[in-house]
Amino acid sequence: MPRYEGVSPSVIRRLPRYHRFLEDLQRRDVHRISSRELSALMNLTASQIRQDLNCFGGFGQQGYGYNVDALLGEIGNILGLQRDYRSILIGAGNLGLAIAKHMTFETKGFNLIGIFDRNKELVGMPVRHLVISDINRLENFCKTFSPQVAILCIPKASAQEISDKLIRLGIKGFWNFSHYDLTLDHPDIAVENVHLGDSLMTLCYQVSEILE
Amino acid sequence: MPRYEGVSPSVIRRLPRYHRFLEDLQRRDVHRISSRELSALMNLTASQIRQDLNCFGGFGQQGYGYNVDALLGEIGNILGLQRDYRSILIGAGNLGLAIAKHMTFETKGFNLIGIFDRNKELVGMPVRHLVISDINRLENFCKTFSPQVAILCIPKASAQEISDKLIRLGIKGFWNFSHYDLTLDHPDIAVENVHLGDSLMTLCYQVSEILE
Repeated sequence: MPRYEGVSPSVIRRLPRYHRFLEDLQRRDVHRISSRELSALMNLTASQIRQDLNCFGGFGQQGYGYNVDALLGEIGNILGLQRDYRSILIGAGNLGLAIAKHMTFETKGFNLIGIFDRNKELVGMPVRHLVISDINRLENFCKTFSPQVAILCIPKASAQEISDKLIRLGIKGFWNFSHYDLTLDHPDIAVENVHLGDSLMTLCYQVSEILE
Repeated sequence: MPRYEGVSPSVIRRLPRYHRFLEDLQRRDVHRISSRELSALMNLTASQIRQDLNCFGGFGQQGYGYNVDALLGEIGNILGLQRDYRSILIGAGNLGLAIAKHMTFETKGFNLIGIFDRNKELVGMPVRHLVISDINRLENFCKTFSPQVAILCIPKASAQEISDKLIRLGIKGFWNFSHYDLTLDHPDIAVENVHLGDSLMTLCYQVSEILE
């Protein structure tokens, strides 16, 4: 049941960017900003910003602008960032390990509680506050700790089998770096795909347009 | 000057996904597919597929379907994947190294010819067929080898300075993993952003909608 009915997915998709810019303002000790200034900063029109933020009731005040801290807090609430979803990472190869080490999950609503791989040579290796576990222990782990989100950094070939299993074990959301299109069979599961290969091909097209 | 005028960016953005599915079919020795079968596979409507592919003249044949190999080749041509843009990676931290090791640049139109970092402890370290270079050597390197594309895996704080410098040194496209929004000041440069933090926040929203 959506908490903000009638808000289009494209507005939702823009909120993390607002969050990033506002967080940056707060870090620079800016606590108040006009929609005109914010629009120059974010390269959006002021009316676009007003429209986006009005979807949630609006946080601006005529002649005052936006209260950065209040707006940041509210966008964080809308996105659910104050939550602490238990998350596991599947696949501790180059990309998986980089994601585990690089991301600050805690500030984005997630708590990384387990890392799994089938490569026995990786099992036991420490990563941040965790130790890589054998994929064979996944089922027991899920039954004990009920993770809600899985980060998939595994090859396409194993992604379908593992994701089906994870859904049976109660996973409700996937951050999917595998080349398998998860969305297809499970419309009731949250999926955010990061298809790096697709992104690189899109860049290739753009560059070829310029250098042609 | 666009080679395919009137083709919307959203169609272009879907082409890598077609490419990925067709490549998979080819790998499984499937050389002919109806738009109905392709649509089931990709979870698109058959008419959407016909519309997308007709933008480029259409590759289907009534009653025969699509020739997988011809279609794959042509989409590759449109995306410019047969090209070989000289690319450099800036920032050999966890994420940068993972990108360098994980991606098959060659099949996506790019040739990785240099990796740079300012951390002296990383300089000299071998990565694939390359060795990490000191960022101080960037300017000379660019003047000698004229790279066209840069992959940015550096913190936001240094991203603006480095990207301005790279543009002066002739870089025409960025694959941008930093939290800095490159597009703003350089509309004539190709930029493909991968904002992993934004993606994770979007997932957080989706999961909170389900678990609320």
